[in-house]
Amino acid sequence: MLFIATNNLNIIMIRKTLPVFLTLFISIGAFAQQEDSIAIKNIADEILTNGKAYDNLRYICKKIGPRLSGSAQAQKAVEATVKMLKEAGADTVYLQPCMVPHWVRGEKEVGYVKLANGTKYNLNLCALGNSEGTGVKGITASVIEVTSFAELEQLGKDAIRGKIVFFNFKMNPTYVTTFMAYGESGGARTIGPSKAASFGAIGVLVRSLASNPDDYPHTGVTIYNDSFPKIPAVAISTNNADWLSRELKKKMSLTAYFRNTSTMLPDAPSFNVVGEIRGAELPAEIITVGGHLDSWDLAEGAQDDGAGCVQGIEILRALKATGIQPKRTIRAVMFMNEENGGRGANKYLELAQLNKEKHVFALESDAGGFTPRGFSLNMTAAQLAKVQLWKNLFYQYGVYDFSAGGSGSDVGPLKEVGAALAGLRPDGQRYFDLHHAATDVFEAVSRRELHLGALNMTALIYLVDKHGL
Amino acid sequence: MLFIATNNLNIIMIRKTLPVFLTLFISIGAFAQQEDSIAIKNIADEILTNGKAYDNLRYICKKIGPRLSGSAQAQKAVEATVKMLKEAGADTVYLQPCMVPHWVRGEKEVGYVKLANGTKYNLNLCALGNSEGTGVKGITASVIEVTSFAELEQLGKDAIRGKIVFFNFKMNPTYVTTFMAYGESGGARTIGPSKAASFGAIGVLVRSLASNPDDYPHTGVTIYNDSFPKIPAVAISTNNADWLSRELKKKMSLTAYFRNTSTMLPDAPSFNVVGEIRGAELPAEIITVGGHLDSWDLAEGAQDDGAGCVQGIEILRALKATGIQPKRTIRAVMFMNEENGGRGANKYLELAQLNKEKHVFALESDAGGFTPRGFSLNMTAAQLAKVQLWKNLFYQYGVYDFSAGGSGSDVGPLKEVGAALAGLRPDGQRYFDLHHAATDVFEAVSRRELHLGALNMTALIYLVDKHGL
Repeated sequence: MLFIATNNLNIIMIRKTLPVFLTLFISIGAFAQQEDSIAIKNIADEILTNGKAYDNLRYICKKIGPRLSGSAQAQKAVEATVKMLKEAGADTVYLQPCMVPHWVRGEKEVGYVKLANGTKYNLNLCALGNSEGTGVKGITASVIEVTSFAELEQLGKDAIRGKIVFFNFKMNPTYVTTFMAYGESGGARTIGPSKAASFGAIGVLVRSLASNPDDYPHTGVTIYNDSFPKIPAVAISTNNADWLSRELKKKMSLTAYFRNTSTMLPDAPSFNVVGEIRGAELPAEIITVGGHLDSWDLAEGAQDDGAGCVQGIEILRALKATGIQPKRTIRAVMFMNEENGGRGANKYLELAQLNKEKHVFALESDAGGFTPRGFSLNMTAAQLAKVQLWKNLFYQYGVYDFSAGGSGSDVGPLKEVGAALAGLRPDGQRYFDLHHAATDVFEAVSRRELHLGALNMTALIYLVDKHGL
Repeated sequence: MLFIATNNLNIIMIRKTLPVFLTLFISIGAFAQQEDSIAIKNIADEILTNGKAYDNLRYICKKIGPRLSGSAQAQKAVEATVKMLKEAGADTVYLQPCMVPHWVRGEKEVGYVKLANGTKYNLNLCALGNSEGTGVKGITASVIEVTSFAELEQLGKDAIRGKIVFFNFKMNPTYVTTFMAYGESGGARTIGPSKAASFGAIGVLVRSLASNPDDYPHTGVTIYNDSFPKIPAVAISTNNADWLSRELKKKMSLTAYFRNTSTMLPDAPSFNVVGEIRGAELPAEIITVGGHLDSWDLAEGAQDDGAGCVQGIEILRALKATGIQPKRTIRAVMFMNEENGGRGANKYLELAQLNKEKHVFALESDAGGFTPRGFSLNMTAAQLAKVQLWKNLFYQYGVYDFSAGGSGSDVGPLKEVGAALAGLRPDGQRYFDLHHAATDVFEAVSRRELHLGALNMTALIYLVDKHGL
């Protein structure tokens, strides 16, 4: 009953707010929606009954595992997804060569805080991605805590010089959208180390970007500013960060030690993996759907972003299995190197420009394979209005939120070639418990949630392909 | 932007469809919503920052564990939640004595299928709740599979007599609402054993009611019909069920053995636990919020229904912590014996009738502490329309679906005393992976999801208390 009511509401709203040509579209649309509803039900039944995304993800996580750019496992993941795309029924599967940063973590990191009684309080820590190493001897220095960049600047060079800066930027728990909290506090990790270096710090401890207290260090890329020394930077667990902050308040001064032997090797050859179903009517018009194949080295990269990859493959499989022949060319892309360079995304754009490809739409899934709630849309107002006309088709599959917003870092660059963009928006409450940590394993993924995401993505691709944007 | 649009839509719909007196209400409501929005934000911030539900749940799961009605742990859970309710700030905490069924599982169940080569294929199985035992020797018989009750009836007494009936009712994977699939297939477990007995069967194997293939038997109550012999009934894992079905198709006839020593002891004394905040203006009007304290014996009963209990306690805590003095009396109730008898719910109704209590609203959380999506409302059309006017206040907290539907089995009986009813509707994709199985442990609960459920429940209680229904 609510479902029907929602349909009516949408139509009322649109009649009141959109130009006449769109009102005309709605009248036509009302007849078309019945047909679309049936097609989407077929897609849904197929994926919920015979979906292969979960089994493919198990393979990527359990048979391959962590797959940092430049690693042997990343190459294995390239080969495995080529096979999966062929099995899914792609007409063509090919690779796009690209050079990627080749950072290696080195030995297991060690770190502790020296306590007054002479003992050591060990920290759960890991080097940030792309961090320089400390050398085998490690570094020892007094720790100074800051909870904002303003605080760092206020302290200034005299207070910071020679010290280890502890960025204790807590993710704001009151933001229901956890990604907002991540965005707000993320600077500590990405630009914090170079900011600290600009004031003379010799090393950095970053509070892990996790939503809840836990004992795991959460890694993630740091981006050095070439104007300052590249000082080593490690993440510590949120529990360690809370402890350290309390101790510093009690004692004012504490000395910490840490050692990481991570290092950046010369760039290594790697690939994006592309699988296509060629369009029957408008093959030159390309619709891209993707996730990233690389992952951090600490876990299996199940939610980040094995999930997005296998969902992309599943879309091709579901279209084939339900006998839908797309008008336009549908490409599932496994982007390489999202985590610490974005070279795959850059290469994909470069080739699109070089080959003068016409990109009409690109959809990314890189926020986890959790139960889907919506799509974030980065497109013109007219396109957005058109997509929102389809909203009621998704309601029964758990997707109700179609908002203007960002897409994702791999499809984002396609804005330059005029593509309308979208990102899957799954529920985000669990994501930052496992993001970039050892807890991002296959067992954290729900088969039904993963497949529900894939089916909503397939439905959106189907509608964009059929009706255009 | 979408959020604002949704508000307008609701108002348009209501203007078009509701009687004039409600239109008047809306005009007043528009001014009140700003105040409500601020109060709900305070509640949300309090629970997302300082929520105690997760810590309380850890205690119930890890310090107490499984708490089947009549068990020593159920009694410990009664005592623990009394303490929690007091700590949450309840004015009054008291017990409602009730007698409960006291079923015990006995020894670990054993079962297998005899293979042609003389070896045994072991089954992952467990007695259904309230099942009779087989006796220490167990039972051995030929297995006959049915996939519907119609099939059972068609086979008839000659085919069934002396056999073990295998109810292979698969949960329909194409239902996005997993509870629908549970409802459709659940009869195999609840009434299947007695139906099989009515045709002369001597035992029953029931396919576990799980959404996905797994190796765990999922228990749950069976309800004997006194007209037929009470034959022993066990659940087997979905993987076992799929295997057995394949083998039966190959071989037509197979013999199975199983043994369970479960038995029903005399009724035992137990309690509902009630914590109240007395209303300042209309103390005789009661708003109940509840979950059930008992759980199955195979796991910690974290999602089913430790979650609902600690959410109920959290509502009282959050009202106190945010300085909201309710007009009406708010009661958090930990119902006893939902799983295999419903005696706590019956007792609560009985006392309500005896004491001529005025119950205006009751809200149940017994569908897991997963990320909330909506409320299912069982009330008059006018009440439903009033609640739907508040819908936009919940959108930013992830709750968007306010539909007519059932509430829950513990508050359901309060319909008899005129209460408007509601049930929290969390996302259900993961629920039947762990429902009634060994996998329903604390680790399966997300702190943020649990607290998000509690905050939406608190918001609904706040609105009903303030504006009435």
